[in-house]
Amino acid sequence: MLHKLVTLLVIISTICASMNAAMAQNNDCKYALVIHGGAGSATADIEVIAARELVLGVALDKGSTVLSNGGTSLDAVEEVIRILEDSPLFNAGKGAVLTATSTNELDATIMDGSTRACGAVGGVTTVKNPISLARLVMTDTRHVLLAAHGADEFAANLTHPNIETVPPKYFRTVHQIQHLKRAQERMRLTDAEQMGTVGCVALDCHGNLAAGTSTGGLVNKKHGRIGDSPIVGAGTFADNRTCGISCTGVGEDFIRNAVAYDVTARMLYRRQRMEKAVADILSNKNHQVRGGMIGIDHKGRITMQFNTACMSRAAADSDGLRYIKIGK
Amino acid sequence: MLHKLVTLLVIISTICASMNAAMAQNNDCKYALVIHGGAGSATADIEVIAARELVLGVALDKGSTVLSNGGTSLDAVEEVIRILEDSPLFNAGKGAVLTATSTNELDATIMDGSTRACGAVGGVTTVKNPISLARLVMTDTRHVLLAAHGADEFAANLTHPNIETVPPKYFRTVHQIQHLKRAQERMRLTDAEQMGTVGCVALDCHGNLAAGTSTGGLVNKKHGRIGDSPIVGAGTFADNRTCGISCTGVGEDFIRNAVAYDVTARMLYRRQRMEKAVADILSNKNHQVRGGMIGIDHKGRITMQFNTACMSRAAADSDGLRYIKIGK
Repeated sequence: MLHKLVTLLVIISTICASMNAAMAQNNDCKYALVIHGGAGSATADIEVIAARELVLGVALDKGSTVLSNGGTSLDAVEEVIRILEDSPLFNAGKGAVLTATSTNELDATIMDGSTRACGAVGGVTTVKNPISLARLVMTDTRHVLLAAHGADEFAANLTHPNIETVPPKYFRTVHQIQHLKRAQERMRLTDAEQMGTVGCVALDCHGNLAAGTSTGGLVNKKHGRIGDSPIVGAGTFADNRTCGISCTGVGEDFIRNAVAYDVTARMLYRRQRMEKAVADILSNKNHQVRGGMIGIDHKGRITMQFNTACMSRAAADSDGLRYIKIGK
Repeated sequence: MLHKLVTLLVIISTICASMNAAMAQNNDCKYALVIHGGAGSATADIEVIAARELVLGVALDKGSTVLSNGGTSLDAVEEVIRILEDSPLFNAGKGAVLTATSTNELDATIMDGSTRACGAVGGVTTVKNPISLARLVMTDTRHVLLAAHGADEFAANLTHPNIETVPPKYFRTVHQIQHLKRAQERMRLTDAEQMGTVGCVALDCHGNLAAGTSTGGLVNKKHGRIGDSPIVGAGTFADNRTCGISCTGVGEDFIRNAVAYDVTARMLYRRQRMEKAVADILSNKNHQVRGGMIGIDHKGRITMQFNTACMSRAAADSDGLRYIKIGK
């Protein structure tokens, strides 16, 4: 009798799961996804461009699968950014640039547009995927931002499948050691060297927006420097009424102009469209903002804009869009 | 001959200094100053209230003197906050609350409304006056925010009259050790225990606004937690076109709603007056913001609002205003 009941329950749950997946994949499931892999000057290396496009494609497909299966925008953002953090090709996680003292200090934020709940970490040195740690700051603490040793300590005390701690040397790649050396020799850095961050914005079938950003920061930065990426309102913002935004560029510009929140403010108070709000901010002569921004508005419209030579970017949606580009 | 020349130069410079002071003190010098010493629940202790009012008065007079002598709003904000940081009666500097691990971690920001230049420090443990360190991040680095050990290290390498380093025990007062113990015993904290920060906004004779905030954060906070006080756009913002703002309260509310910048956004995009913008934010049912705000707009109008039981506050201006209050 018990055996039959268990068998019946398994059959019912299998049918339910199939129905859920089918419902999510049908035309009622409207989703959108946009990713950036950093703004900066153009690279002439075709192989690097091809490799970055490949990783962006993998991340795009992973995020699209989460969303088309009815998953949440928060899950999509986290999964996409984890892939970019694990690649040495982007300035986040494994590929993070080095500080002036040749260490790595990683920043990340995630924000839920349905509640404005958010979590962030700054100056992390031992966490493989800072975006996942930021999410746990959001869900498992009463705080928004944990920094430096306190953030590493929080991670060390967690037992969560998404939190893997690594020795700091995990991030010190030969490529980044050479990059720092070049930067210190020249002192003045080019755009490409100053910038680079990863970010993702998603709108899920349930109408919820989420945004996240992760970075190694500026090459040759001072020990302890925190940029815009872990600052809600500067590098990241999400609100279901307006849009989700993730930024990349000279972090200090984005902080002093509260850029990510400014898009929402312009939409709420000035009735601007997201596309126009982002364009106005990136072309503002009075308050220079050097870099790029990606966003999705509450209707699923996607924007990818930058005032640098290039920005690694990708987008997909439930209408069949699949776009990957690095140059203009 | 040389002696006569030197004497002449001394006479000329003395006359010039007197003329400058006279010009600054005349009716053309329009200035305004507002200070807060933290929002929270009412304290029944009349002696504590009187002592706080006394310190607020000293700080108010110091800032007014700077401004009436033609000094800058940045100098006024820094000088005022240094006085509050040196008092054990406010949750900043000497009077900072303790973290969950019984240490002190101090946050501060300063911002120049004429340029949107800004500097901030988070999680500082060895600097007597974090507001002065924030100002040097603004002027002496290419960064906006330095956190934790990196900020202490930056301070240790400075030789500046306003930067005095102290052993961490300087901040561990008997009063705050008892305060932490009570908080940990009860786990749930009252408003009074959760809040408390100091801040200042000034408009100088030259028409420039500046704002600054300094705090020990939340009592019993997690090691590494950074609140809104060192976050430009959240706890502090200044723009000559709109206003200067400094906040106090539950920092996480101010971060997730980019509160200090939101006042400027409402003024710029919705044409709200500062007074109304602050009132709307503090009474918003959709996005709860628990605490208080002080501000001065570009015309010198002052606001001091809070949705808690009380907020230590003081204001003065060149028209003769001199106001100090703690309760409603």
